[in-house]
Amino acid sequence: MHVLITGAAGMIGRKLTERLVIDRALGAQPIEKMTLLDIVAPERPPGFSDHIKTRAADLAAPGVAAKAISERPDVIFHLAGVVSAEAETDFDKGYRVNLDGTRTLLDAIRLAGDGYKPKVVYTSSCAVFGAPFPDAIGDDFHLTPLTSYGTAKAMCELLLADYNRRGFLDGVGLRLPAICVRPGKPNKAASSFFSSIIREPLAGREAVLPVDESLLHTHASPRSAVGFLIHAAGLTRAQLGDRINLTMPGVCCTIGEQIAALRRIAGDKAVSLIRRAPDELVERIVGGWPNRFEARRARELGFTVETTFDDIIRAHIEDDLDGKIGV
Amino acid sequence: MHVLITGAAGMIGRKLTERLVIDRALGAQPIEKMTLLDIVAPERPPGFSDHIKTRAADLAAPGVAAKAISERPDVIFHLAGVVSAEAETDFDKGYRVNLDGTRTLLDAIRLAGDGYKPKVVYTSSCAVFGAPFPDAIGDDFHLTPLTSYGTAKAMCELLLADYNRRGFLDGVGLRLPAICVRPGKPNKAASSFFSSIIREPLAGREAVLPVDESLLHTHASPRSAVGFLIHAAGLTRAQLGDRINLTMPGVCCTIGEQIAALRRIAGDKAVSLIRRAPDELVERIVGGWPNRFEARRARELGFTVETTFDDIIRAHIEDDLDGKIGV
Repeated sequence: MHVLITGAAGMIGRKLTERLVIDRALGAQPIEKMTLLDIVAPERPPGFSDHIKTRAADLAAPGVAAKAISERPDVIFHLAGVVSAEAETDFDKGYRVNLDGTRTLLDAIRLAGDGYKPKVVYTSSCAVFGAPFPDAIGDDFHLTPLTSYGTAKAMCELLLADYNRRGFLDGVGLRLPAICVRPGKPNKAASSFFSSIIREPLAGREAVLPVDESLLHTHASPRSAVGFLIHAAGLTRAQLGDRINLTMPGVCCTIGEQIAALRRIAGDKAVSLIRRAPDELVERIVGGWPNRFEARRARELGFTVETTFDDIIRAHIEDDLDGKIGV
Repeated sequence: MHVLITGAAGMIGRKLTERLVIDRALGAQPIEKMTLLDIVAPERPPGFSDHIKTRAADLAAPGVAAKAISERPDVIFHLAGVVSAEAETDFDKGYRVNLDGTRTLLDAIRLAGDGYKPKVVYTSSCAVFGAPFPDAIGDDFHLTPLTSYGTAKAMCELLLADYNRRGFLDGVGLRLPAICVRPGKPNKAASSFFSSIIREPLAGREAVLPVDESLLHTHASPRSAVGFLIHAAGLTRAQLGDRINLTMPGVCCTIGEQIAALRRIAGDKAVSLIRRAPDELVERIVGGWPNRFEARRARELGFTVETTFDDIIRAHIEDDLDGKIGV
């Protein structure tokens, strides 16, 4: 089996690559070859190098998508995209990468002309939803994104479903919840604090909390996100039916509950490193985000996620901190 | 006020033009100029000719959209599109016209660069919905189209909402129900019989009914469709909020109720001209279509429609038959 990962240099892309290199298989099928594509050359993971090609290329540029599928990968994990904040500040780039890049890839598949019909696992986002929301967002709630990022994601979900329906490919789209705990440094994303209030204290560093502790949000670990992608690749057309775009499950909890979990796992000293600095702008942005999902179909289809925020913290400690707490 | 109508040669485009030529105004604003655009040159309606430009052009072709808005029309009724069946059989043409044509128009507006911000009234369709459905489709039901036509319409709704949100234009999208009674001849569209079982008997001709009388569907007259468009042009940003794509109201009734209305208006002789010829394929296609809508927001925003199917037949007799029944 040949696996192509676009956006392979990103956080989820790297973790998915690591996992596939360890598993050497996807479902019951051994992986013989992997192609890692991103706008910057993805790192070559150790241990499988003979069978991995890495490429730096822009999928929206002429010919790149056709070349990316020229060796007819069996499964394509399409993670490439410009993040939310950048798609909002750079309108043209956001649509070019997030909409045109995806459409170009799907069209390259459609036009392959030799009966090529890969599995395409597309990462969408809960940013396809826009306030106001019901208490819990059901699987048949409409998509009214309030960002250009969410708009392009929602448009690509529709495109993927049509290409799937017409038989050009076997598609499945996954609306990922907030991924937490993200490794790395705090960034300027409005959502950065969800991870940093856990990650920074665990490393003995201060973190800033800009919102009220009552704020509710839904999270999944990077490990679960990778699990979603791998599970999705194994779903059949018969299992999915026509509605191939799925809201993924997550752990829904308040900031206060996140902090309580941190206390249980890393103690009062870790929690004392969280500094309150209310920020009205962040409060307002985050207040417009969806906070709770039913994700009934995804659970019925066998997608699994952590059951408590404690588990999410433990996944971070195991996967990103070699099991060690630094506080 | 300058009004641009794309798809002006189509049935709704012609009826909208006629109505605006009679009204000489849109809301409280007098119309000084109209531009009628279509892939074939629209007819010049009598009585207002000095102030009407007609153009045959393809909006998706380079430069056409920029030229179409070069005189900065205040209101754009964007009706242009390839119909459902054609978009399904000619994939490339469908997406090129229905998606790229619309995107090109919206981008021409965005890139005008002189503060230009027209009102854009976009005609979407209930084909954005796909089975299975609840008893009545609410305003927050998700869009899972089962045709390439519906997919492109849903994608353009999303695009319009984002361009509206970012302030490039004032947008409103209308999901039209089945338009009935369509004037003209029966055609090969699966939906053709909804109109022909009324129109043909009223003209003394036989009509074929391929489905069971229990089939439920939602209809609005061409007159109501024109009314929706004109009403939409007058709605403000404040009234619409972020959710600018609206399911229009209609008259929901069974085929049996359509026929009963025909009997009340035109008698048994008209009804006797309906010949039953069950067609499994048509039954199956139509069975996948949405049949009943709540359309609560549209009604709250002041959109009105006929209350009975009798009214829909009467609108046809008045508007298309000069008040005369031919049976």
